[in-house]
Amino acid sequence: MPTPPVDTRHLVEHQTRREELLKGQFLHVLRDTVRLPDGSEAGREFIVHPGAVMVIALLDDGQVVLERQYRYPVQRAMVEFPAGKLDAGEPSLVCAQRELLEETGYRAKQWALAGRLHPAISYATETIDIWFARKLVAGERQLDAGEFLDVFSATPDQLLHWCFDGTVTDGKTLSGALWLQNFLAGQWPLEWQTQGL
Amino acid sequence: MPTPPVDTRHLVEHQTRREELLKGQFLHVLRDTVRLPDGSEAGREFIVHPGAVMVIALLDDGQVVLERQYRYPVQRAMVEFPAGKLDAGEPSLVCAQRELLEETGYRAKQWALAGRLHPAISYATETIDIWFARKLVAGERQLDAGEFLDVFSATPDQLLHWCFDGTVTDGKTLSGALWLQNFLAGQWPLEWQTQGL
Repeated sequence: MPTPPVDTRHLVEHQTRREELLKGQFLHVLRDTVRLPDGSEAGREFIVHPGAVMVIALLDDGQVVLERQYRYPVQRAMVEFPAGKLDAGEPSLVCAQRELLEETGYRAKQWALAGRLHPAISYATETIDIWFARKLVAGERQLDAGEFLDVFSATPDQLLHWCFDGTVTDGKTLSGALWLQNFLAGQWPLEWQTQGL
Repeated sequence: MPTPPVDTRHLVEHQTRREELLKGQFLHVLRDTVRLPDGSEAGREFIVHPGAVMVIALLDDGQVVLERQYRYPVQRAMVEFPAGKLDAGEPSLVCAQRELLEETGYRAKQWALAGRLHPAISYATETIDIWFARKLVAGERQLDAGEFLDVFSATPDQLLHWCFDGTVTDGKTLSGALWLQNFLAGQWPLEWQTQGL
């Protein structure tokens, strides 16, 4: 099923002005003025984000590594795949290896880049690279100061059931579950690369 | 596979102060100071969002209704399920019916609430209710001024292939594809309700 190229020029919005609305400790917000396809103008307010990674780490017993972390904006402890933001200039795989080690203590001998997701396309530039990791070696985690999270593991079937019953509502983790289900079914193959530990 | 209750009290963050950082035309940003589990303090900056809906609309020929829309923050035309924000006080199903009609022209006789997702748990309060719709009747769409998007349809297999090959990267749509795949496989049943048109 090849995807035919699609002409989207009639949908594109072009920047005409830019204004910085907020430079917080964490959030950076811009407002661009854009020219719409019909020539009129509109405002676009959005968060500038450095990008992030998520890691679907496969244990030798078939389970996957998960975290439980309190997410203040939604006022809930969420079940998630390990994830984190890119440091300035940091390659995606280096970030994935760093976040998995820091948050869970695991290192992995094999890695595969599955795909990419955009979590909030109407108000954030953020992209999340979806990595798979396998041939895991357990070690000591190295949480940042002020970081509190539980690490545990579950079977893919259990995780999928949690996606169905509302236990898992984190968008990136639901997207990761789609990848996990189709990879395990042999439908979505991955290209693995071997890394030194 | 019942989900055991989990004690998450050791992870919870408690608000101690609140400050409004930005009240834009579109984005509303707060900074709360929170007490962490170890008693120390930290800042949490986040977008206050009214909530949203997404609609997975099943055509009688087995295809699903999709949109192609330019999303300025990611500078790309994205393939998405129809979606939109709740108006103040608007019930979720009313919003789903309104957005499907306005953006695609379709009304649906049967609706089912599948689940909920949180697209950006580290910096937004947003929740998206995931609705399925079937028994569709086509009509005229009613786009807002300044809204430009293409409506088309695809088979679930084509959509899933686009999720695999990187054509679809929108997080809510990837999460919706997980629901679609498992609903169609008979794994994730839905409770349908019939609506007057």
